[in-house]
Amino acid sequence: MRHFRSEPLDEALVMRLLQAAHFAPSVGYMQPWRFIRVKSAKTRERMLALVEAERLETAKALGERQAEFLRLKVEGLRECAEVLVAALCDRRERHVFGRRTMPDMDLASVACAIQNMWLAARAENVGMGWVSMFDPQALRELLGMPEDSRPVAILCLGRVDAFYPRPMLESEGWKSREQLANLVFEDRWPAE
Amino acid sequence: MRHFRSEPLDEALVMRLLQAAHFAPSVGYMQPWRFIRVKSAKTRERMLALVEAERLETAKALGERQAEFLRLKVEGLRECAEVLVAALCDRRERHVFGRRTMPDMDLASVACAIQNMWLAARAENVGMGWVSMFDPQALRELLGMPEDSRPVAILCLGRVDAFYPRPMLESEGWKSREQLANLVFEDRWPAE
Repeated sequence: MRHFRSEPLDEALVMRLLQAAHFAPSVGYMQPWRFIRVKSAKTRERMLALVEAERLETAKALGERQAEFLRLKVEGLRECAEVLVAALCDRRERHVFGRRTMPDMDLASVACAIQNMWLAARAENVGMGWVSMFDPQALRELLGMPEDSRPVAILCLGRVDAFYPRPMLESEGWKSREQLANLVFEDRWPAE
Repeated sequence: MRHFRSEPLDEALVMRLLQAAHFAPSVGYMQPWRFIRVKSAKTRERMLALVEAERLETAKALGERQAEFLRLKVEGLRECAEVLVAALCDRRERHVFGRRTMPDMDLASVACAIQNMWLAARAENVGMGWVSMFDPQALRELLGMPEDSRPVAILCLGRVDAFYPRPMLESEGWKSREQLANLVFEDRWPAE
């Protein structure tokens, strides 16, 4: 099991990771990403409560896999060095370029930014976890976010005791890796 | 202006790019990405018509920036060596882990896969463009995709005459790069 170590991250390193995120491509060059650095211990504690509540709701919704799910390490919010919330900006409707038929392409852009940050973190030997188990409205209220903005991810960052050699959910038997050949089609979706 | 060259991409290279995509992280290890390689010239022609129709609709929706928009190079579908459609899989509702409150986290995973492919392409000196100007229902029908699947991106790939030194929409004056400091907040969203 991977664990975060308690030592803080160097400020310049955190800025390099944010810079990597900011250099992601975005729909119509919209740059819709915003980042809230959570430094308040009280706010972190409240976020932890939100995540824990949703973890239990998720477990219930999973039915027969409930017990198996509850044994997994699904967040590192308590012990990680740095907590960031990645969010979609407000006033998104002003941006039409590349979003007229698919408005959620700005969410895709934020995901590209987070993936850039993830790869940059790994290159710097920093562990990162993306937590999506929370009620977005509750987190929005906690962080004073405008109604038309949206929290996308709680990112837990820090030095770790080790990196997983394979995805943790694979090692723990939650799910296997798909064969790439089964995910690539030619010209048309295959018939059932 | 960057242009695609006509030479085909090596098959092993295309597979490396798809492999990079497939090694992206995903919500609950769902691996929701699917890729359709468009080899049929007829299908590519029809996709081009869909994109061109949406380009004109977007131009109209942009109002006073219409003429400026129409001068931009927004796709390379006609001349690129390889066309891929990146899609969300069908039967997504079976996956609850990390998606109970935010079902579109699987779209975020597909975006991470595309960003991995983008970075891998650049490292291989291959240009890539992400086209999101199309009617998703029309593209779904063209490619025989199930109703509960969803096309996310038309990806244009190929050797190019040059890479842009800066984002093209920045060089062309469409939009400037934001200052990172304006996008990073501490503990709370800033007041207006």
